[in-house]
Amino acid sequence: MDAKTVKIGLVGFGTVGSGVAKILQENGQEIAERTGIRLELACVADKDITTPRVVSLPAGVLTDDVSQLLNDKSIDIAIELVGGTTFAKDLVLTMLAAGKHVVTANKALLSEQGAELYRAALKARRCIAFEASCCGGIPIVSALRTGLAANQISALYGIFNGTCNYILTNMTRSGTAFADVLKAAQDKGFAEADPTLDIDGTDTAHKLALLAGLAFGCRIEMKDIHIDGIQDVQIDDIRNGQEMGYVLKLLAIGEKDAAGQLSLRVHPSFVSEETPLADVDGPFNAVSVFGNAVGNVMFYGRGAGMMATASAVVADIIDIALGTSERLFERMPMVTEKRKAANFKKIDDIVSRFYLRIMAKDEPGVFAKYGQVLGKHGISISGAMQHEGSGPDSTVPVVITTHPTRQKNMAAALNELQRLDIVRGKPVCIRIVEIPEDKE
Amino acid sequence: MDAKTVKIGLVGFGTVGSGVAKILQENGQEIAERTGIRLELACVADKDITTPRVVSLPAGVLTDDVSQLLNDKSIDIAIELVGGTTFAKDLVLTMLAAGKHVVTANKALLSEQGAELYRAALKARRCIAFEASCCGGIPIVSALRTGLAANQISALYGIFNGTCNYILTNMTRSGTAFADVLKAAQDKGFAEADPTLDIDGTDTAHKLALLAGLAFGCRIEMKDIHIDGIQDVQIDDIRNGQEMGYVLKLLAIGEKDAAGQLSLRVHPSFVSEETPLADVDGPFNAVSVFGNAVGNVMFYGRGAGMMATASAVVADIIDIALGTSERLFERMPMVTEKRKAANFKKIDDIVSRFYLRIMAKDEPGVFAKYGQVLGKHGISISGAMQHEGSGPDSTVPVVITTHPTRQKNMAAALNELQRLDIVRGKPVCIRIVEIPEDKE
Repeated sequence: MDAKTVKIGLVGFGTVGSGVAKILQENGQEIAERTGIRLELACVADKDITTPRVVSLPAGVLTDDVSQLLNDKSIDIAIELVGGTTFAKDLVLTMLAAGKHVVTANKALLSEQGAELYRAALKARRCIAFEASCCGGIPIVSALRTGLAANQISALYGIFNGTCNYILTNMTRSGTAFADVLKAAQDKGFAEADPTLDIDGTDTAHKLALLAGLAFGCRIEMKDIHIDGIQDVQIDDIRNGQEMGYVLKLLAIGEKDAAGQLSLRVHPSFVSEETPLADVDGPFNAVSVFGNAVGNVMFYGRGAGMMATASAVVADIIDIALGTSERLFERMPMVTEKRKAANFKKIDDIVSRFYLRIMAKDEPGVFAKYGQVLGKHGISISGAMQHEGSGPDSTVPVVITTHPTRQKNMAAALNELQRLDIVRGKPVCIRIVEIPEDKE
Repeated sequence: MDAKTVKIGLVGFGTVGSGVAKILQENGQEIAERTGIRLELACVADKDITTPRVVSLPAGVLTDDVSQLLNDKSIDIAIELVGGTTFAKDLVLTMLAAGKHVVTANKALLSEQGAELYRAALKARRCIAFEASCCGGIPIVSALRTGLAANQISALYGIFNGTCNYILTNMTRSGTAFADVLKAAQDKGFAEADPTLDIDGTDTAHKLALLAGLAFGCRIEMKDIHIDGIQDVQIDDIRNGQEMGYVLKLLAIGEKDAAGQLSLRVHPSFVSEETPLADVDGPFNAVSVFGNAVGNVMFYGRGAGMMATASAVVADIIDIALGTSERLFERMPMVTEKRKAANFKKIDDIVSRFYLRIMAKDEPGVFAKYGQVLGKHGISISGAMQHEGSGPDSTVPVVITTHPTRQKNMAAALNELQRLDIVRGKPVCIRIVEIPEDKE
């Protein structure tokens, strides 16, 4: 049986783009055998056509003129790998107008300006595929669209940003402060020169917007997501958490309660060291999904990098060539702009357990005062820890963990605690996230 | 946009069959919105049409006459959930001859008699889908066929049998012997009344045959797989392994070496307690896949049970209704009966680390004798452990772990060790499997 040939154009011959070309060269035969589709990289456009890449292209394929790709009617699928949200947006619109299906790894673009792009795609009767935009090589978009399509999803928990996870893992392992670990991560290439969008949680939220949209069947906007980054994480709290059996992760959380209200948030989270997500270390990503039929399913793999991301780009190309992507695209909730489940819970109404670290003068009655304030706001203490000895200025850190508490009660209690004359500085407050157990 | 209606027939209204009906009733609306396909369960055939199930069907749907289903031309997709390999085989052939695509969860049937069924399907221009046959609700068949299709797969490691994993987990946790844990598992419904095919490794091998066939692109027969079960596992060895940092699992292993030789085996395996598969407990399944682009990807979830398996059955129905399954089916290596990579490594030629426990008389020179025998066969010791004190008949267990060793050398050494006059009984020998690390 002969394989059908599908011609592809690629814009952006950087790291991931080179990876795509490398996969098509090295694994093209295997792909053709497995799927019946021979993928031909017919045109690659980049403004830099001289710097050597990890892969070399046949003569005539590389060009600095993107119109060569756009005008080639034989190219069915165009890949956008230029990044950013301005030029990339125009490019995707132009690709669609030229009659091409679009593959992109650009989560910022889709989560911030997807609506306009999806409309343009529907109008052009083409699709936009974005497996590579979330969690690198993990086929999670495909799992949510087809593999788990028999389920109503009640929750998803994810570690979506390799840079943050690398930093938190290394702080935990080495006991080194945030700034030093970030510097080391930059030196090793695990963090960008400007890591703002990673460490402030924005990148994680971009991915949550896309995946939660698929999981819960509604269009999610960035403003629907509460975001705290890891920039203020202190090593003392990681250590205290460890002592109590917790590991600190930057989690993306999407939960749908019994009444159908959605809670979407990204924040540093203590998770039990027993939960599988606690073991996801370094630059790896993972997604834990709860479905009403399947129970708990977890996916784990490299969240970024040349080849892992390129693996997902090529998976998207295959789905488009098979016709699956196109058929599902026009049904996607973010595309139909449906917001049926779009009943979003305010962060104030979230119920969570909390970890508190309060620095106070080492004097009698401190614990009693904390207890009074917390009790007044209906907050029940589940654990407490105070090490002997005191720090500079004879202050001592007291660590308190709470039973499930409404966020707004905690905010009020924190406000009051901070005003106690014995308390030094702002108490540290980190959510403890209890990932449901799918037990025997 | 209206959803297209697809009619489905189901034969076998047992546990999984009831789960399928339940999903279609409870999640049908969600599925239609997500995929554009409205699934209608038009006919359910079972010889027992009186016992109440967890779900009730509309009047006229349940029948004890399978021909009602076969003769209904409006039914496009037929689900075989009767189990076994004799009646089920005839049934699948009849379904195909009646022009229906077939969905089955029957790994025994496909791994043992797939060739004939695939030929019949190709002839009838229909497909056979089997997501539910491997690892319950984990979408691993789909991942290997499309999600990871950009990769050349070098290895897969899996925990595929919930009964064995439940037994090993509980032996490890409670320190109870195999027979007692098996009994308790049967009482709780985690093991069949006749658990032979589970504990002897056959069920795991059935799944390995299917998944390794997809991963490595060749038809795999049961005779190509070396199989050892868990029936002889002793609690002492689990304990010794724990002390040395290992967890005992029944692993399915598929590895392709640099020369393209395939090693396929199922056996009790010590894995490092650090490796993610070590944390897969109880009735859960997991699959760890290594691809040349994606690196390591792991999938985790419920390997069996009514709803998890039904989730996979419905995922297959969706893929067929989308047209994906049909297009990929005729390419599947087991279907085309390709055996291109079918260069199988003999178990004698496998190189592995080993754990040995040798019972011997407590007398001077024992260690030296072991060392001589192992050294003579070129086997290098990597660790040794002997606890003080001796057991009945003043015998002492000595535990030795080796560096990587060819199986045939180990077999020869064991043979010789067993003949030493100081040695009591047959030494215990368990492979230590080093799952590759995909490190930063």
